[in-house]
Amino acid sequence: MIRIAKGDRAYCEAFIQSLKARVSENDRSVEDKVAEILKDVRDNGDEAVRRYTMKFDGWAPEKAEITKEEIDALTADCDPAFIASMERAAENIRAFHARQKQQSRIDPSPTGVLMGQRVRGLHRVGVYVPGGTAAYPSSVLMNVIPAKIAEVGEIVMVTPPGRTGKPDKNILAAARIAGVDRVFLIGGAQAVAALAYGTETVPKVDKVVGPGNIFVATAKKLLYGTIDIDMIAGPSEILVIADKTAKPEFLAADLMSQAEHDRMASAILITPEEDLAKATAAEIERQMQTLSRKDIIKESIENFGAIIVCENMAEAVDFANELAPEHLEVCCENPLEYIGKLDNAGSVFLGNYSPEPLGDYFAGPNHVLPTSGTARFFSPLSVDDFIKKSSFIYYTEAELLKAADDIIRIAETEELTAHANSIAVRKKK
Amino acid sequence: MIRIAKGDRAYCEAFIQSLKARVSENDRSVEDKVAEILKDVRDNGDEAVRRYTMKFDGWAPEKAEITKEEIDALTADCDPAFIASMERAAENIRAFHARQKQQSRIDPSPTGVLMGQRVRGLHRVGVYVPGGTAAYPSSVLMNVIPAKIAEVGEIVMVTPPGRTGKPDKNILAAARIAGVDRVFLIGGAQAVAALAYGTETVPKVDKVVGPGNIFVATAKKLLYGTIDIDMIAGPSEILVIADKTAKPEFLAADLMSQAEHDRMASAILITPEEDLAKATAAEIERQMQTLSRKDIIKESIENFGAIIVCENMAEAVDFANELAPEHLEVCCENPLEYIGKLDNAGSVFLGNYSPEPLGDYFAGPNHVLPTSGTARFFSPLSVDDFIKKSSFIYYTEAELLKAADDIIRIAETEELTAHANSIAVRKKK
Repeated sequence: MIRIAKGDRAYCEAFIQSLKARVSENDRSVEDKVAEILKDVRDNGDEAVRRYTMKFDGWAPEKAEITKEEIDALTADCDPAFIASMERAAENIRAFHARQKQQSRIDPSPTGVLMGQRVRGLHRVGVYVPGGTAAYPSSVLMNVIPAKIAEVGEIVMVTPPGRTGKPDKNILAAARIAGVDRVFLIGGAQAVAALAYGTETVPKVDKVVGPGNIFVATAKKLLYGTIDIDMIAGPSEILVIADKTAKPEFLAADLMSQAEHDRMASAILITPEEDLAKATAAEIERQMQTLSRKDIIKESIENFGAIIVCENMAEAVDFANELAPEHLEVCCENPLEYIGKLDNAGSVFLGNYSPEPLGDYFAGPNHVLPTSGTARFFSPLSVDDFIKKSSFIYYTEAELLKAADDIIRIAETEELTAHANSIAVRKKK
Repeated sequence: MIRIAKGDRAYCEAFIQSLKARVSENDRSVEDKVAEILKDVRDNGDEAVRRYTMKFDGWAPEKAEITKEEIDALTADCDPAFIASMERAAENIRAFHARQKQQSRIDPSPTGVLMGQRVRGLHRVGVYVPGGTAAYPSSVLMNVIPAKIAEVGEIVMVTPPGRTGKPDKNILAAARIAGVDRVFLIGGAQAVAALAYGTETVPKVDKVVGPGNIFVATAKKLLYGTIDIDMIAGPSEILVIADKTAKPEFLAADLMSQAEHDRMASAILITPEEDLAKATAAEIERQMQTLSRKDIIKESIENFGAIIVCENMAEAVDFANELAPEHLEVCCENPLEYIGKLDNAGSVFLGNYSPEPLGDYFAGPNHVLPTSGTARFFSPLSVDDFIKKSSFIYYTEAELLKAADDIIRIAETEELTAHANSIAVRKKK
């Protein structure tokens, strides 16, 4: 049973602290194991990757890369209705992300001076796709499409070969829809290392994105700086803020759609309406019985779920801003008025007909979102994550001479006389 | 003497590798020491910060925060000409960065569906400013001004109290020009920890930026995820590509302006002109004698400097793209033609009158740039580093019902039946 609590300030703060405790500290023993794998792959390339694949996946394909023809064959019996749904989702994701694309910029001055910044897609990006039960075709779309829009030169997907000897056909279909260029059947820290350092067969990339287990996440963290990585993902959560216009049946369903992800997931409703709170708790009990992942839902709801009864909607907004949830549903009258009130959230779902799964799969905004309170400073995955910028400066002789004394004065104050000299030699001419 | 080398492919690759070797691997003994400081500050707040300040800085002020009145008094005898130069620099930096500001966006559909993303400045940011000889007022402008333009709620500067008992007056003046809100005289890993966790007196921030020694850098790296950090900075470099229109006197001065930073800095010229190469080497020897940081310049030039003679400008461009230098000068005919050819560089300085110090101090683009080859995937510090985005989705009932079957189909394929249920309960209505 989900707890129903009177949400005074002390309760809310303690509850937020208890959710923060879900995030584990750096695990040194995992770091040591991963560091060894990284070094081995850096030094021994494909041979090391193959050795770890044998060890962790139980077998290794003769050739880690699978060809376009093999992908066509493996995806031949995908459900055409599923493929059509994925194609419609991909179209929406493309449309939303296309509008994020930044352009190179120039600031021309009447003096002849030109400054600006060039924006371009990364040369090559790796996308990690977990195997097993966490293999989500929708995540392939969400990770790959922004990279395509950024005009990344080449997108390399890695995914474990799986104990069955066959990669997930729907993952491969999603890779094709999204526009992945190459696919390698490798997983774990060894796959991340292969992407970061390059091997005889795996090309070296500039950035690795995508979810993974603790070994994959640790490999990414240790390699940060050698490559770029996406944000560090922790346990996920949904917060729903609701007033009397909300529907208990919908609220219960939405809370459980997050709770089913894993046993660490958190689903929270905050509302000033005590009747709504009770009705939603009852609905959760009723609907849960019909759901295949009932056991996970029950555990995450009991450990990390809550229905908090607050005084008014202003308190609900304050709680949301403190929690900084990954997903935030606003099931209230005039939901659009909340956009500007909510400071910290990955994605905001407004109104009774914008449930979280609409955003997870279909509407267009990215479902890779900052978790565990990191929405205070991280943003949803976007086209910006797959570009890099360079600034450029073109000065004329006349404008440099006008600036010369200022530059020399600052350089000399900082005791960097070679900086001053670089201007002085031009002034003397 | 700077080496002059025939730059065939093998030589260039080996040289780039030797520069990469400047970057040290994770140092476990430093990490252990820093981890202990972080934990201590998290648990014991101001008392721990004060204890470490006493230990590492030799003394600690009664009150770590210095007031606006104290700053006014401490900066009273700054050179007015220096202040005026800094104000002109700040104006240029503001103008360039103001054009980076992203706006919140809405995508309205004729169906009534609204999607978009809200952009807002971070709530509170910490800026680390090193003490001692690496105390650069210009860096205060470069780190703080983009945060101001992003409309960060509060900017907290930390800087070591210094063994003299007085903070650097020019650093404080720069903080005032840039618009820092609060200044604390604390430094090292303990200052970063205080900002990340908050103490009784130091407010908790969402992000820490700014350069620092290995303890500061390690603290930032370990706290990544608890807070956001800026990119990881390594040894810096300049590459100059030059044709026969370049002037040896200028080239020599510019190479040394980078070489003087520290003994690990790298300064490289690549040109097809052998005469230019020799003349530049001679100019380096000649000018070096007049420079106060001659010893550092000599050491970094000898260890990490080179003049490479290549076959043609296309090879020079290839080398630049491989090296991905922090600073890249183009001293060539028609320099603007190179903007689109250069894929990987922090900042590009075009023509004979755009030397690196112009960008370091005055022109407007940021001088916090990706170092040591990370320009392959990192970008100059910008307003984007001080904002966060939230996406929002508002669907109508009619549009959700149109999408319902697609969403349910994808959810069921992923075996997430509670996701499907969240749509199904709305469909049944």
